[in-house]
Amino acid sequence: MIQQLIQKIQKTKAPVCIGLDPMLNYIPEHILKASFREFGENLEGAADAIWNYNREIVDHTWDLVPCVKPQIAMYEQFGIEGLKIYEKTVRYCQDKGLLVIGDAKRGDIGSTSAAYATAHLGKVKVGDSLCTAFNTDFLTVNPYLGTDGVKPFVDVCKAEDKGIFVLVKTSNPSSGEFQDKLVGGNPLYELVADKVVEWGQGCMDGEYSNVGAVIGATYPEMSAVLRKRMPHTYFLVPGYGAQGATAQDLKPCFNEDGLGAIVNSSRGIIAAYKQEKYKKFGPEHFAEASRQAVIDMAADIGSVL
Amino acid sequence: MIQQLIQKIQKTKAPVCIGLDPMLNYIPEHILKASFREFGENLEGAADAIWNYNREIVDHTWDLVPCVKPQIAMYEQFGIEGLKIYEKTVRYCQDKGLLVIGDAKRGDIGSTSAAYATAHLGKVKVGDSLCTAFNTDFLTVNPYLGTDGVKPFVDVCKAEDKGIFVLVKTSNPSSGEFQDKLVGGNPLYELVADKVVEWGQGCMDGEYSNVGAVIGATYPEMSAVLRKRMPHTYFLVPGYGAQGATAQDLKPCFNEDGLGAIVNSSRGIIAAYKQEKYKKFGPEHFAEASRQAVIDMAADIGSVL
Repeated sequence: MIQQLIQKIQKTKAPVCIGLDPMLNYIPEHILKASFREFGENLEGAADAIWNYNREIVDHTWDLVPCVKPQIAMYEQFGIEGLKIYEKTVRYCQDKGLLVIGDAKRGDIGSTSAAYATAHLGKVKVGDSLCTAFNTDFLTVNPYLGTDGVKPFVDVCKAEDKGIFVLVKTSNPSSGEFQDKLVGGNPLYELVADKVVEWGQGCMDGEYSNVGAVIGATYPEMSAVLRKRMPHTYFLVPGYGAQGATAQDLKPCFNEDGLGAIVNSSRGIIAAYKQEKYKKFGPEHFAEASRQAVIDMAADIGSVL
Repeated sequence: MIQQLIQKIQKTKAPVCIGLDPMLNYIPEHILKASFREFGENLEGAADAIWNYNREIVDHTWDLVPCVKPQIAMYEQFGIEGLKIYEKTVRYCQDKGLLVIGDAKRGDIGSTSAAYATAHLGKVKVGDSLCTAFNTDFLTVNPYLGTDGVKPFVDVCKAEDKGIFVLVKTSNPSSGEFQDKLVGGNPLYELVADKVVEWGQGCMDGEYSNVGAVIGATYPEMSAVLRKRMPHTYFLVPGYGAQGATAQDLKPCFNEDGLGAIVNSSRGIIAAYKQEKYKKFGPEHFAEASRQAVIDMAADIGSVL
């Protein structure tokens, strides 16, 4: 699976992932109004607005990027109606040839992680049939429960040629509270990084493993250390743009071959029309603003590689 | 909210939580067959079987226990159809007067955790309306991202009088891999425990906080230390029964007032009819076996308090 991602990155020349994390306050008035008129100011109306918003963004950007990353929480907050749109968005993007990273940060004890792995990457046996549920290409995974909580995801990666990105060093302000704590002289996130490498060793797909890592762009000195420590691990890198990281901050996430990292931007792309820089597009042409923001982001990253 | 749980524990004299974690291989043939006949061997058929199974267990046990804990992964693996049954199960249990602990172990960066908190405990604003999605009474939360990833859950607990249980020391075999690592002389889980106490201080509801902790019953010496370290924190305790912990192992999770812990059992109750001890009930009367297993579990725990 990671080879498919690499090929798409090379084809698009953009190690860029669009974070499809729709908040209602990102969605232009005209879309909200139309959906509320049709379905009411309820979960169904919200879900319809999100769908129309997502679709227009994908229609205007699918040829520029290798992948998207819908954050499932943004759909889950609208209950079943929201999750239907999560699923519909995943299918729509895959039909356009995009790879989909489900950002769900799941993780639990073994048997429960196995169910999550099935839900998002695998197949579930019902009687004599094999069925799929959300069926994304990649999933983000939380490592706090240790190896037996992560192994079921790795097993599904092997069986189905899928990929995961395990949280190692996250981009948020208080990520250091536990992750940076020194354990035998090294920060905890390095210990987690070493485990990610170990988990990924049986899961190689060319030069890189299908078991990747989430490494926040907001801590570039740490990214540099981790890049050396895990040379065959692909990094999913949040934190660029709205969260504060610059292209220079991203540089240490890449290997010398120009590969090794896929950089996510959510708000910076999907709500680009709200920025001063893209205001000229106006809310009616929000998806064209998103397209321009993707082009600018790819050029910005390209300038440091 | 924690006071409501305590009152129900005192009324039922059972600090017992039924883990509604249905696996298809727990469900008796006659239920599976009927659902597959009606809907086919597909996600809908599986979901219908789970619903009929859950409902019969709840109908036979609701008067004995204060709460249930559906593990959302077991529903999520059947996609939207499964999640509809999760929601239906939550509502059904609440209508019977049971408190519901959503076992979702969510956790992310701040804005995303806010969406999860809304999804499971809060209300989401759509236009001028406030809507609820899954609306459980408690939720389990993963702390790996630190304070800003947990705070949105705490905020919703305050605003809506709900509760959370934050993972501190989990019950699975490899939980020690990261959680037990020494940080400045103390294991990481103690550092997490101290943070849980801190997060809970603004969230007191009587003697206990609405911010609780998940403490696996499988490590009783650690439970004893944590019980002393966090006297006003309620413990959600998995690991009893099928995972290996005995009533003696549970004892250190309780305070001297006989409160402070709610003990979960999933397989041991919902699939009781498969055990030698309850075989006499037979698959047709699986829910009566579950009822007997709850009575036995409550007596077993009662014997050490």
